[in-house]
Amino acid sequence: MKSIQPLIIKTAKAAIALRQATDSQIKKALQLLASELEADSAVLLKANALDVSKQDPASPRTDRLLLNPQRIKSIAQSIRKVSRLPDPSGRLLEKRTLPNGLKLEKRAVPLGVVGAIYESRPNVTFDIAALCLRSRNGCLLKGSQEALATNKAALVIIHKVLKVSGIDPNCVTLLPAERENVQELFTATRYVDVLIPRGSDSLIQYVRANSRVPVIETGAGVCHVYVEKGADLDMAVAIVVNAKVSRPSVCNSMDTLLVDKAVASSFLKKLKGPLEKSGVEVFADAAAGGLLKGYPYLKKAKSSDFAREFLSLKCAVKVVGGIDEALEHIRRYSTRHSEAIVSRDQQQCERFLLEVDAAAVYANASTRFTDGEEFGLGAEIGISTQKLHARGPFALEKLVTEKWIVRGKGQVRE
Amino acid sequence: MKSIQPLIIKTAKAAIALRQATDSQIKKALQLLASELEADSAVLLKANALDVSKQDPASPRTDRLLLNPQRIKSIAQSIRKVSRLPDPSGRLLEKRTLPNGLKLEKRAVPLGVVGAIYESRPNVTFDIAALCLRSRNGCLLKGSQEALATNKAALVIIHKVLKVSGIDPNCVTLLPAERENVQELFTATRYVDVLIPRGSDSLIQYVRANSRVPVIETGAGVCHVYVEKGADLDMAVAIVVNAKVSRPSVCNSMDTLLVDKAVASSFLKKLKGPLEKSGVEVFADAAAGGLLKGYPYLKKAKSSDFAREFLSLKCAVKVVGGIDEALEHIRRYSTRHSEAIVSRDQQQCERFLLEVDAAAVYANASTRFTDGEEFGLGAEIGISTQKLHARGPFALEKLVTEKWIVRGKGQVRE
Repeated sequence: MKSIQPLIIKTAKAAIALRQATDSQIKKALQLLASELEADSAVLLKANALDVSKQDPASPRTDRLLLNPQRIKSIAQSIRKVSRLPDPSGRLLEKRTLPNGLKLEKRAVPLGVVGAIYESRPNVTFDIAALCLRSRNGCLLKGSQEALATNKAALVIIHKVLKVSGIDPNCVTLLPAERENVQELFTATRYVDVLIPRGSDSLIQYVRANSRVPVIETGAGVCHVYVEKGADLDMAVAIVVNAKVSRPSVCNSMDTLLVDKAVASSFLKKLKGPLEKSGVEVFADAAAGGLLKGYPYLKKAKSSDFAREFLSLKCAVKVVGGIDEALEHIRRYSTRHSEAIVSRDQQQCERFLLEVDAAAVYANASTRFTDGEEFGLGAEIGISTQKLHARGPFALEKLVTEKWIVRGKGQVRE
Repeated sequence: MKSIQPLIIKTAKAAIALRQATDSQIKKALQLLASELEADSAVLLKANALDVSKQDPASPRTDRLLLNPQRIKSIAQSIRKVSRLPDPSGRLLEKRTLPNGLKLEKRAVPLGVVGAIYESRPNVTFDIAALCLRSRNGCLLKGSQEALATNKAALVIIHKVLKVSGIDPNCVTLLPAERENVQELFTATRYVDVLIPRGSDSLIQYVRANSRVPVIETGAGVCHVYVEKGADLDMAVAIVVNAKVSRPSVCNSMDTLLVDKAVASSFLKKLKGPLEKSGVEVFADAAAGGLLKGYPYLKKAKSSDFAREFLSLKCAVKVVGGIDEALEHIRRYSTRHSEAIVSRDQQQCERFLLEVDAAAVYANASTRFTDGEEFGLGAEIGISTQKLHARGPFALEKLVTEKWIVRGKGQVRE
């Protein structure tokens, strides 16, 4: 197996030069990339067809790997969107002159080199390349073996555009797809500044456990909606149904419904119909189970069901004695992703928003809004449930670090 | 060995209540802590004398453990300073109303619970408690066995003050000093949000390698001063001497001097006298060695000497062909702490400031300024050389995370 070290070093070097490109140079390169992608789509589709032909057509992975004209168009649109976002690097964060005359600036600067480790989706190749280019980071792309021909064709387009734009093409590097050389990436602390795993939970855990390069991980969501006794029950039904049903496969969908016992009976009566209509399976505690008697998809909840991220048309339901119990339950089971209260009582809402420790907390809205695009941050890499560096939608603005720049006239310290 | 889990959980609970204390309540508590510390110093000194009596009087650790009236006064002053700093939590970072009427706020919020693992210095107990209180974080203090009586006496004072101030004393918890139960701290990811090791490099590496709780580490400095050919040589001498000699034991002191070959001869001639006066041992490359011939503390540099953090009156010296070679050398050996260029050539300075990847970069000033107090951030926990979350002086302002707070009127996502 060939060492990937030379590729890593070349990328790190190119990333330094990228700091001196002009903003319009980068913007134009991204716009050109979007149009070249559409113009050259035949080559990319051909390579993709080759990759796809080697897969089991029935596997969901094959669908994730597949490109078609519509998917290419959507990738191009996403690149255009990124091109319009402001460069997060270079932003002045603080400025002061010290009593001794030293001029201090704290500026956002590129992280340096971002490594992405991902699975079969070819859009990730373009997403990461575009976000890194926009934030002046070099990037190392470690895609899967299955997508190799597609990724190689993608890189031909990207490199052609970079050359035409006067940017060193080594800024964006596709690493060999062999799984073994990922170890070299995990230990490249001098040249690689952050690793971003994108894909299954097992991939993320593997990277987290093995990398000495810092990892930004996007986590699972065990999300709650708490229907407080002061809730507008019709609003609560709409929010609960939306949070569960609108896209159950994503991390910001509701997993557990908590209902105040004062309104549990009337609320669950209203909720039953809409839940049944969508075929939602309910894991209920004893009290909720009693009130939902006769509901066709009813299961008895084990305590472990309250720790489940369902990612499907299933949810847990629990009746709570009031906000204290709701907060306690959330404290215990939440993965600190997205949590919501429904209530007309302002004071209870504000207490919930203050006390619940999560990336996003909601009063009277669906948890489904936790998303970079929805929040106006542009394309996101994922939702971070960690507390350091990036929390919540992890987007372009977080692909930077800080640097203190100090200009003096010979000042020394006493 | 008793589990420390109950202590951890109690602290996490108290930390939530701390979010609802008023700002003036916290400020007053800190001021009261400073005055009570001075007033109760006899008790603290007595406990400290007991700890000290068990140590080898000749060990430098014993001096670090020692308290005296002057050190207590300086701790009290430092607490007063922290009391005057603004609360970093609660700060509004972003605010927007989405087209659908959702009101978004991104706010700085306390991290939750901060665990500090440190060695014998008793001031760390008060520093961490004060910084955590000011930023509304609970804290778990894991001091050393050697300082146990001192730390217990410190906690009596802290708890008394918290009670009087109407704050749950469980916010600040001293953990048992046994080394074994630190494992429980390393795995308490649900209750402890960040660990901060303070002390020797081996302590920091141990925590980093073993903790599943995120660690903020403060790193070593291999710091360079580059004397470019356009430098004012007298200014360069003053900066180099200050960077090396003013406090050689700290991480922001200079380790390697890089001199442009065009000025190497005249510059080293000027530098020799002041370096010799301070007894600085010089590890020189061949070219610098030739120019420094006859210097009494001259050694031949091995390539590993350029990777050393000396922390003493020693430095490496290398003659470089120009800024490209200087940048290349720094890229290779820097620990990304503090790096300086001395030159009257603005363009070269700006290139250095842009291209050097470090927490603090200087033009025409000593590297010794990299410090929270000097930068106007107040007491610092250390200098972070990592790129995520905190970089450079790691002070109060970074003891927070972010939270998206969303207020709606029943909005659901399409």
